[in-house]
Amino acid sequence: MEPPKKYKKEFSYSYALGPFPTFELLRHRPREVLAVYCREDFRDREKLFALCEKEGVPCAYGERTLERIAQKEICYAAGVFQKYEGALGKRAPHVALVCPSDMGNLGTILRTLLGFGIGNLALVGGGADLWNPKVVRASMGALFQVNFQFFENFSQYLGEFGEGREIFPFMLDGAHPLTPESCPSLGGRPYTLVFGNEATGLPPEFQNWGQSLLIPQTPAVDSLNLAVSVAIGAYLFTWKNKGGRQP
Amino acid sequence: MEPPKKYKKEFSYSYALGPFPTFELLRHRPREVLAVYCREDFRDREKLFALCEKEGVPCAYGERTLERIAQKEICYAAGVFQKYEGALGKRAPHVALVCPSDMGNLGTILRTLLGFGIGNLALVGGGADLWNPKVVRASMGALFQVNFQFFENFSQYLGEFGEGREIFPFMLDGAHPLTPESCPSLGGRPYTLVFGNEATGLPPEFQNWGQSLLIPQTPAVDSLNLAVSVAIGAYLFTWKNKGGRQP
Repeated sequence: MEPPKKYKKEFSYSYALGPFPTFELLRHRPREVLAVYCREDFRDREKLFALCEKEGVPCAYGERTLERIAQKEICYAAGVFQKYEGALGKRAPHVALVCPSDMGNLGTILRTLLGFGIGNLALVGGGADLWNPKVVRASMGALFQVNFQFFENFSQYLGEFGEGREIFPFMLDGAHPLTPESCPSLGGRPYTLVFGNEATGLPPEFQNWGQSLLIPQTPAVDSLNLAVSVAIGAYLFTWKNKGGRQP
Repeated sequence: MEPPKKYKKEFSYSYALGPFPTFELLRHRPREVLAVYCREDFRDREKLFALCEKEGVPCAYGERTLERIAQKEICYAAGVFQKYEGALGKRAPHVALVCPSDMGNLGTILRTLLGFGIGNLALVGGGADLWNPKVVRASMGALFQVNFQFFENFSQYLGEFGEGREIFPFMLDGAHPLTPESCPSLGGRPYTLVFGNEATGLPPEFQNWGQSLLIPQTPAVDSLNLAVSVAIGAYLFTWKNKGGRQP
């Protein structure tokens, strides 16, 4: 392949930057890896070379390449991987993000969902580029273990997955406060927690879909951070609906 | 004052970047504000000028100043404020962060604590600069409503605040899983939730202080993001110990 350049959204490939995300990539998506680079002073270089050899992935020293793709930061190892298609589990719990804009949040949400056992993420209506190396990095490689699927709009999502599924839009004017007591117990029915954009939240029409929820918060803040809201929702729903802890 | 420059940690002042944090600064810490700048095309400029006049704060157009202090991003308004001293409430619930390193996390934690009604943050052993404009921005101005205090080490914190206080260190090898059922009900006794650095967690000796807790998570992740862990802890403790929702 050509020497990798600074990431652009239109590329058919992206980068896992840093040792931890690179090892996660090799462990969970070995077939998508095009190449791995590391610095000569990378402590775990022998382990990395051995794993690459096992997976049949080219691995090379490349300090300049790493500097070019990691931009400002020092990066000891990185993986180049081709973007791949994802598909959600039909009966699994989902989280749907409508137009999320912050890449750090998106990565943190992937990591959080995996940590609480929700392995399926619907991305609705565009927004931050899931493949951007900043997302991969903030996810600590969780991207490689979470199923995802893109949808033009929420109707398209409902058309494919809505049947028999409980929908819970999280809104600042949500009809019901979400607490450990009030969190719905769904007896194994599939459910989707829906969250809007960081600045604008969900559009009002989401009040028409399912049961809108509000995370109780003091009037001292305008809202909670998106990744924090998703974490509280995912934590309570997987706690109330056991089995969610298995991704 | 001199025209403001790119922020450095050693400055005696810092910046609230962006309209929302700037309004929060003026509302909650008007006496610390040295100057406010906005762009001529800032939509709420009249509201901003009026508030500055009410508080006796100089306010001026300054596109170049904004570019200089906000670095790459477009910034419609910013406040310059002097750093100030904080002090924790003696009987209030606290969160203590030991050497947090990520500025985005620190800001998100301030916003989250304020949202869940924990208005007191102890910063132990150094770490990310609380005053960095990135922290202020990620906090959405919550910094200006949260009490904070710096401590050299945890013993110093305990010396000043430990008496009659329950301590809960959050650790990956914590002795007790934290769930809504198991979350301690403290009958009004003050408590402190303690969290370690993003990469290293809390040192093992924290097992000796109070009751260590673990947030249940799948083995698919190495750990949860720090701001997410703090959010789950703060949410459950303030829910179980009512009254916490009032900051």
